[in-house]
Amino acid sequence: MSDPRLQSVDALDQTAVHLDGVRAAGEAIPWVGRRRYLHAGPPIGLDELPGPMRGALLGAIVFEGEAEDLDQAEELLASGAVEIEPCHDHCCVGAMAGVVSPRMPVVVVASGVRRAFSPLNEGLGRALRFGSNDRGTVDRLEWLAEVCAPALHRAIAATEPIDLTEMVAEGLRRGDECHNRNVASTASLMGRLAPAIAEAGPGAEAARVLTYGFGNRHFFLPFSIATGKLLADAAHGAEGSPVVTAMCGNGRRLGVRVSGLGDEWFTAAASLGEARFFDGYGPGDATATMGDSFISEVAGWGALALEAAPAIVSFIGGDVESSRRLTAEMRRVCVAESARMLIPGDRFRGTPLGIDAELVARLGVAPVVNNGIAHRDPGVGQVGAGITRLPLEPFERAAEALAAGAVGGGRG
Amino acid sequence: MSDPRLQSVDALDQTAVHLDGVRAAGEAIPWVGRRRYLHAGPPIGLDELPGPMRGALLGAIVFEGEAEDLDQAEELLASGAVEIEPCHDHCCVGAMAGVVSPRMPVVVVASGVRRAFSPLNEGLGRALRFGSNDRGTVDRLEWLAEVCAPALHRAIAATEPIDLTEMVAEGLRRGDECHNRNVASTASLMGRLAPAIAEAGPGAEAARVLTYGFGNRHFFLPFSIATGKLLADAAHGAEGSPVVTAMCGNGRRLGVRVSGLGDEWFTAAASLGEARFFDGYGPGDATATMGDSFISEVAGWGALALEAAPAIVSFIGGDVESSRRLTAEMRRVCVAESARMLIPGDRFRGTPLGIDAELVARLGVAPVVNNGIAHRDPGVGQVGAGITRLPLEPFERAAEALAAGAVGGGRG
Repeated sequence: MSDPRLQSVDALDQTAVHLDGVRAAGEAIPWVGRRRYLHAGPPIGLDELPGPMRGALLGAIVFEGEAEDLDQAEELLASGAVEIEPCHDHCCVGAMAGVVSPRMPVVVVASGVRRAFSPLNEGLGRALRFGSNDRGTVDRLEWLAEVCAPALHRAIAATEPIDLTEMVAEGLRRGDECHNRNVASTASLMGRLAPAIAEAGPGAEAARVLTYGFGNRHFFLPFSIATGKLLADAAHGAEGSPVVTAMCGNGRRLGVRVSGLGDEWFTAAASLGEARFFDGYGPGDATATMGDSFISEVAGWGALALEAAPAIVSFIGGDVESSRRLTAEMRRVCVAESARMLIPGDRFRGTPLGIDAELVARLGVAPVVNNGIAHRDPGVGQVGAGITRLPLEPFERAAEALAAGAVGGGRG
Repeated sequence: MSDPRLQSVDALDQTAVHLDGVRAAGEAIPWVGRRRYLHAGPPIGLDELPGPMRGALLGAIVFEGEAEDLDQAEELLASGAVEIEPCHDHCCVGAMAGVVSPRMPVVVVASGVRRAFSPLNEGLGRALRFGSNDRGTVDRLEWLAEVCAPALHRAIAATEPIDLTEMVAEGLRRGDECHNRNVASTASLMGRLAPAIAEAGPGAEAARVLTYGFGNRHFFLPFSIATGKLLADAAHGAEGSPVVTAMCGNGRRLGVRVSGLGDEWFTAAASLGEARFFDGYGPGDATATMGDSFISEVAGWGALALEAAPAIVSFIGGDVESSRRLTAEMRRVCVAESARMLIPGDRFRGTPLGIDAELVARLGVAPVVNNGIAHRDPGVGQVGAGITRLPLEPFERAAEALAAGAVGGGRG
């Protein structure tokens, strides 16, 4: 029987992913429906929601027309009528709060019969993913759902197939690491769709869609992380494989899943990491690690390709030398090097690929991820970004579970 | 009296350049008119034109409606009825053959009352700048002139002003050096113009313009080199300044101009450099150094920023280490470091800026430039790309002229 680690890594490195469309979550994701919403990170109770996730849920309830205002939304949430489940359990990943409700547009990526999803990025400023839920936030979501998403969907259908792993790889050649820096990849993807958007018209509407897409420096993020999720799902379920297939936060706990350990979440208290705060903010303002976007690192880019994005340090701190050291360190806890995600500045060497929970536990070297920091109060938005070293504990417990399973299951 | 070298370098580093429009050369450039065309490089006689430049002139004559076919165009050219002058003498720069005739669309960049120009890049394949002149080449020029250029011009007028030096600087953050690699900058510029192009419509025409722009990986090149030309012109004419303000080739001779030496060209035989040839071609197929695009290096990017574009080595050869050595070497012959063109991978150190002919002569270190290689026969197109080390001779003779001028003019 072949090495289960290599089964996982081959899936991460060889699965082809193309862009399928942009659709309403309730149409695309089977479980999502009336009063059934998704959230980022491992499971969380409605009684322990961090501020931004609570704010996002309230905004989603208003956006869905279940409440006329936030007070009514509070009542509905308190009544227990709204169910929430992790994005990750439904082939979905959401940045920050990661709240997904049925009318919200999600990016759909595909590989054969598999699909993965991620909510369209709203842009900077007052955004639901940071817990904003005022009228402007909901109105923008309305426009995204009713005008922008259909225009993008039609353009995708009218355009030659877009290979998303190749677009991430080209992003690495253009100074993005496709997690916290997506500027070049955004222009690249929108440039592919722009002719079809313009052709479909009408002119003023096409212009607004193009202005939103090109003007949003994180437009590419959901395309990047949905791709990562599809790769991770393809790598999941290899018997005995210690390769990590999910790392995410809900603002309270960090959760890790491992290929050979089914749907079990290994958790630890969420931490803050070494954030670079925007002017006027500090650690006291921050929500601890939240969001599913660490799937980038699971898939071999983001912090694991940091050296490819030297300009990012003005946003997240550090310098190229520390990026190189970080990449070198991550090679120690990864199974392989990617054959398609290459770092041009390191002689096109592949990025570290396939975080191995057993190596993490044995060496005591925890994975690092890029991170965006949300204000702890709903509605304030992003207050920083940076590098987060995840806690060792979930990886150690996953390694123990694998070892126990090895004894029980008779593996040698 | 302040150091004339610093006068030149300050002009290179501080002049603000914005995008003004895309217009017919005959409307934008005073000298250009009926049977008065421009070409790349220092002056050249009609009897010594290299193949691609001759091919481009014949194509231009047909495009202008002066001849019905290439045979008639040959007759007209042989009759001496067509005058040609260097682009550089008319605030213009042209890649490769650099032929500019009145109906051709040129990018117009501006700084105060100054303007500089460069012909819109036709795209890959059979292009006039490589000497192609068949019906397809002329038809594409027709579309560029009649449909595309007016659409771009209207979009530029309808869009917030575009700061082109900032766009080059951002290009360096996105892995372009903005001479031989322009992929990210193309997407960046087209992304700024796309909303206005779509808004103006009609849809099918807007789609074609967007397909051309986004699909042409050198679309940004004329914007880059027109910017470089405007900076170089601003730096030109500082009394006694040895700073180089033009380097270019006409396929026969390389020409160099220096800030303190007026309009005199210092020339040497054009060489070939270390090209990387496309499959099936070799040195015997090549035209020697041709084109005005070395103005990128004059202005502090291109080969002088090679380290910012690690992915370019797959196109021009070499590796990141050799790029670093090359940049380090160029610092020895430059007056300063740019304050706005920064290399993210070298801790945002400024690129070498202001090639000093006296330092070049004294140290015996000739400038290097990025280069595209045209086939020596008209109509074949690009056959390679690479790094070219320019001959020392023109710089040595410029240094001698400065020294003689210093004696004659009483400078100490």
